[in-house]
Amino acid sequence: MKKVKLQVPATVANLVCGFDILGMAIHEPFDEMELKLLETPEIIIKHKDHFGLSEEPSKNVTGVVLLKIQEHLNLKNGFEVIINKKIKPGSGLGSSAASATGAAVGANELLGNIFTKEELVHFAMFGEELASGVKHADNIAPCIFGGITLVKSSNPVDIIPLNSPDLFVTAVHPQVEVKTSDARQILKKNILLKDAIEQWGNIAGLVAGIQKNDFGLIGRSLNDVIVEPVRSILIPKFNEIKEKSLELGALGGGISGSGPSIFMLSEKEETSQKIAKMMKSVYEKIEIESFVYVSKINPSGIKIIED
Amino acid sequence: MKKVKLQVPATVANLVCGFDILGMAIHEPFDEMELKLLETPEIIIKHKDHFGLSEEPSKNVTGVVLLKIQEHLNLKNGFEVIINKKIKPGSGLGSSAASATGAAVGANELLGNIFTKEELVHFAMFGEELASGVKHADNIAPCIFGGITLVKSSNPVDIIPLNSPDLFVTAVHPQVEVKTSDARQILKKNILLKDAIEQWGNIAGLVAGIQKNDFGLIGRSLNDVIVEPVRSILIPKFNEIKEKSLELGALGGGISGSGPSIFMLSEKEETSQKIAKMMKSVYEKIEIESFVYVSKINPSGIKIIED
Repeated sequence: MKKVKLQVPATVANLVCGFDILGMAIHEPFDEMELKLLETPEIIIKHKDHFGLSEEPSKNVTGVVLLKIQEHLNLKNGFEVIINKKIKPGSGLGSSAASATGAAVGANELLGNIFTKEELVHFAMFGEELASGVKHADNIAPCIFGGITLVKSSNPVDIIPLNSPDLFVTAVHPQVEVKTSDARQILKKNILLKDAIEQWGNIAGLVAGIQKNDFGLIGRSLNDVIVEPVRSILIPKFNEIKEKSLELGALGGGISGSGPSIFMLSEKEETSQKIAKMMKSVYEKIEIESFVYVSKINPSGIKIIED
Repeated sequence: MKKVKLQVPATVANLVCGFDILGMAIHEPFDEMELKLLETPEIIIKHKDHFGLSEEPSKNVTGVVLLKIQEHLNLKNGFEVIINKKIKPGSGLGSSAASATGAAVGANELLGNIFTKEELVHFAMFGEELASGVKHADNIAPCIFGGITLVKSSNPVDIIPLNSPDLFVTAVHPQVEVKTSDARQILKKNILLKDAIEQWGNIAGLVAGIQKNDFGLIGRSLNDVIVEPVRSILIPKFNEIKEKSLELGALGGGISGSGPSIFMLSEKEETSQKIAKMMKSVYEKIEIESFVYVSKINPSGIKIIED
């Protein structure tokens, strides 16, 4: 029986000023997934984690992606999937995107690599639709392409892979809930043109910095004058963590996805470890449990461990 | 007596979606300037062109830049400048920026290259202040650095030189007046967040396309959903010219600066020549005189012809 094992990494969407367009794959945390091609058409989902996600295919992110692929190919085979999620749902670290991407990439591998990366993004977006009501590629794109990606358009899928700067990432996931719907509703529909101009100057600087491997420019460009000032209100201690990270030498950072996770980029591992320690201690002081991850920007994204 | 001759090129600011941040140097038209270092402190400005610009130093773009440099260095020398402007004032092709940049670069050359490029931008901006009331570097930056530049900040001066894609530029200057103040007033102070997101996706795509030399991506990104729909109303036949340019094979283009000039980028010289012919004929039909220029993106900007 054909099977494939995958390591599916966490991703950081809404990369500071790159709200809704820029995302980044990191190394940790990651989900483990194992997919088998079945001779019979059923889809079997088994979660080894304890997040209480539905295992009914039509109500499971991985399941809906496989159903779409099955339907698209008029496939007689089914799939059995064992998922060990380590990216906690609701963390803002691309948990649903990992489950969706693992489904698309795993099925594609089992079926003999018949899809382009753009097609894989297309299928995986059905998982995001189930999870959040919106077919978006912000987390899926870096998970599939690796490094930092620009989603120029999700319909039609137009993904621009950017460079993958050699930087360390510290991510903290405080155990508080930020509902994506709240994070969305809190945004203003109208913004000032002058703020938008400042934002797109930062985006242009960030993309140029990424492509030139100019870490100073990346740091100067990691400013979000539109979304962060509004959304950060929903995340306890956001400002303190950001300020202290910059004092410790971070290039910059911000909210991961729609939160509550926060990420910071650093040139040196030592800096990223100091930031990790600081983050942990800030949340300990206010008795909020937190998980902290130190890894690097992940240049290759989802990894096939074993066929 | 020390003297220097300069060729100072036209520039295209507000590069479509890159409103207020991206500018580009082109080869034609260009101003000719000759500067001499005088033993005495006076500043003498002579215009060989017939645009009727004041030759009084404090009321002349070149003059004010030289006065600032003189004051900054507590200089006992003066300058004599002969200017042959070919970039018509009010064209939207960086006419005042050329006069200001020529002053700063010419003086720097005569004084033994004592300033950095950022300092030259700083001095040249006093010329823009005289011309338009605003110290902006949108045209000065590409004139000094060449190619396409990102003005991340003008105070402090933070210029990011981007690549200079090997593309042809067709620019048309219809002989109508668009006042910069009108072009500014017509802009809305508030914009929709969703439009801003589309715009910054395009900016990110444009910068990535420029850095990757991906002409297809540059073309897909040359869309301005915020400024062009409003400002193009002030330019006769804008929509017709844009549509026909795209039909003829242009990658894209838009308003140069705040108009009335329009520019289009093309991969092939043949395409850019066809576009030039079409532009001319569109304006002939409505009896508006126009000047049309075909050149390439200018990778080096201002040129010292002779010391």
